[in-house]
Amino acid sequence: MNPSTTRRIRQFTIDRDWDQFHTPANLAKSISIEANELLECFQWNEEQYDLEAVREELADVIVYCVDMLEKLGLDVDEIVNAKMTKNEAKYPIEKAKGNAAKYTEL
Amino acid sequence: MNPSTTRRIRQFTIDRDWDQFHTPANLAKSISIEANELLECFQWNEEQYDLEAVREELADVIVYCVDMLEKLGLDVDEIVNAKMTKNEAKYPIEKAKGNAAKYTEL
Amino acid sequence: MNPSTTRRIRQFTIDRDWDQFHTPANLAKSISIEANELLECFQWNEEQYDLEAVREELADVIVYCVDMLEKLGLDVDEIVNAKMTKNEAKYPIEKAKGNAAKYTEL
Amino acid sequence: MNPSTTRRIRQFTIDRDWDQFHTPANLAKSISIEANELLECFQWNEEQYDLEAVREELADVIVYCVDMLEKLGLDVDEIVNAKMTKNEAKYPIEKAKGNAAKYTEL
Repeated sequence: MNPSTTRRIRQFTIDRDWDQFHTPANLAKSISIEANELLECFQWNEEQYDLEAVREELADVIVYCVDMLEKLGLDVDEIVNAKMTKNEAKYPIEKAKGNAAKYTEL
Repeated sequence: MNPSTTRRIRQFTIDRDWDQFHTPANLAKSISIEANELLECFQWNEEQYDLEAVREELADVIVYCVDMLEKLGLDVDEIVNAKMTKNEAKYPIEKAKGNAAKYTEL
Repeated sequence: MNPSTTRRIRQFTIDRDWDQFHTPANLAKSISIEANELLECFQWNEEQYDLEAVREELADVIVYCVDMLEKLGLDVDEIVNAKMTKNEAKYPIEKAKGNAAKYTEL
Repeated sequence: MNPSTTRRIRQFTIDRDWDQFHTPANLAKSISIEANELLECFQWNEEQYDLEAVREELADVIVYCVDMLEKLGLDVDEIVNAKMTKNEAKYPIEKAKGNAAKYTEL
């Protein structure tokens, strides 16, 4: 994401004085709520979906993720790379290849 | 997010031959599932939470969002900026300032 | 649900002194969290699922719904029948038959 | 729940020929989606909420749970009592009393 996009998200919150509502817990709820509006695009039919709606709902999830990173002072590359290191260890290529089983079952 | 982080997420899927499982609908479910593992960090106590767990679960949500952008060939800056333009119109500063009411109630 | 089952759910909470954690908001989070553990049973494969896991996760959702009814002093038949009356009006049989479109699109 | 309420939910589906859409996976998505509309009632303010909206969204969750019990041929008392037996063992009163910690941390 371009820094200008991140700044736009941040400025949106500042301009509306919404930081007071953006507790980590409220943002976690918001991410789940928007994730389910995204899921609703696939509720009854997984093949045919409204791409415009998907774009908007996915954007909403991402915006709240950016808000949460900001609120907790987290660096997205740092937390994602730390998690990818764990994922790579949990799902070794030779065991996981072509297999969607949860790692506890591998 | 640095391009190298995005590439690492992409390579993880390729190495395990998991593209076949990454339908848009399955990724939407996965975003919701991970969002709720994040929410679980705040289930009974919103003030005291395990920051390490929050970092990991938020990273999981973001990784699946990157997978979905990739799968649908979407540009994150494009979809987020398009949505921010809508949000800015829906929540005019003068009406929304300090007010968490949903836009339909403004 | 038999009254004895409802009483067992209630007694479980009383015995552990957990009413203090069962705010309506915490119960709403809990219902979503358990709903997503249920959804996880269908994350990568919708045809083959672990029925025992489905039974347990669906039971968890229902238990928290009973907790919420109890906490808010709601009667399940009353709220469900009130909603069904609305649903029947929103989705007239002649329009909705065999059609999963959302009512706003009917 | 009175048998007449369960029958009304069932008849609603039959009349609209919606059984074809009610796969277990679609119902699991629907439970999560409705759970998050319930959660939205508490998104920014956990103390003040619209009780009428809560009643409706909780009813929606319950209706889809009834649909899923029906679809899978499950008995609600049987699955809830089986889960309560597990919960009672996982959270012994002496350890869990007044403590919302997850059982893995008890």
